[in-house]
Amino acid sequence: MANPGVLIVISGPSGSGKSTVTSKLLKDTRFAFSVSATTRAPRAGEEHGKHYFFITKEEFEALIDGGQMLEHAQYVGNYYGTPREPVERLLAEGKHVILEIETKGALQVKAAYPDAIMIMILPPDIETLEGRLRGRKSNTEEDIKNRLETAKSEIKIAREYDYLVINDTVENAVCEIKKIVDSETHRTAYNAEFIDNYIK
Amino acid sequence: MANPGVLIVISGPSGSGKSTVTSKLLKDTRFAFSVSATTRAPRAGEEHGKHYFFITKEEFEALIDGGQMLEHAQYVGNYYGTPREPVERLLAEGKHVILEIETKGALQVKAAYPDAIMIMILPPDIETLEGRLRGRKSNTEEDIKNRLETAKSEIKIAREYDYLVINDTVENAVCEIKKIVDSETHRTAYNAEFIDNYIK
Repeated sequence: MANPGVLIVISGPSGSGKSTVTSKLLKDTRFAFSVSATTRAPRAGEEHGKHYFFITKEEFEALIDGGQMLEHAQYVGNYYGTPREPVERLLAEGKHVILEIETKGALQVKAAYPDAIMIMILPPDIETLEGRLRGRKSNTEEDIKNRLETAKSEIKIAREYDYLVINDTVENAVCEIKKIVDSETHRTAYNAEFIDNYIK
Repeated sequence: MANPGVLIVISGPSGSGKSTVTSKLLKDTRFAFSVSATTRAPRAGEEHGKHYFFITKEEFEALIDGGQMLEHAQYVGNYYGTPREPVERLLAEGKHVILEIETKGALQVKAAYPDAIMIMILPPDIETLEGRLRGRKSNTEEDIKNRLETAKSEIKIAREYDYLVINDTVENAVCEIKKIVDSETHRTAYNAEFIDNYIK
């Protein structure tokens, strides 16, 4: 069963803990991360080519025009997007590729790759979400309010996702996502070649 | 998340080990078995109400006419079918209900319950399947040939199932099915009420 990898789209509101969950998933070498491109400025500790490709608006728009962006969106005044080539290369190598992207881009990916599995990560409840946002000292009160409003609008489209994973603990969330991906590799559509060859 | 159970249809050719897998799954109290009805004679050790409801052809046909059969089929000259009432009651109680049925009946269930998850169990390869059939001393050479031909026609429709589980060891097959069912309970459609209430 030499199969391509599974494309996994992970979204969740700010404060859902999706980045921590993703980084734990990546400890498993079956998974690979596709680095996004953005025009926003790097935060402290963020590295070009690791956390994001930090590029200019002009560079970003040239990639869009060249059909080299799998998805892209503007968010709080900046472009975010997923370069197409590395995703397709990693999938062909059999890696399960994780895209950690916001909801608008996620739906673009689903339209382009219907086999992608769409996972929404949420904290156990909205109070926990707000608590996590307030716990980040870098956020101002206005920033928290904006993020909460954005979170609510993102949660409203959770039903367009395939799966909901509650991030009560990082370990549980990682375990559930691995089960979901493993189940996906048991789909008959994923094993079509195996089935065809079975009775030959 | 007080949800109804998941309806699980398990099929597999004779020799796939589906009955052993099912009986191991049932050690987990989240799962329940829906007893089928049949007009065939009981085999040694089979109990009425446990392995099957052994009923007459006339009784079976009366249940069909009354709309009380979720699915039914004829197989090697006998009726086999699933009474509807116990399945619906167990699902409402939150049990994951296992139907261990052949392919024709399985597709009837999928048509009636699109949310049912359809799992096809196969041995690792066709040679293993044949070996398992030959290992059963109760089967004549003609019986083995018939069962192999039936198996091949069943495997041809495996792609109409949702999932393929290879029964290399019973423990692995049980583990994979539990993962599949667990993933199913993470579907956004399954958690629609939770999502709706999240931001209220």
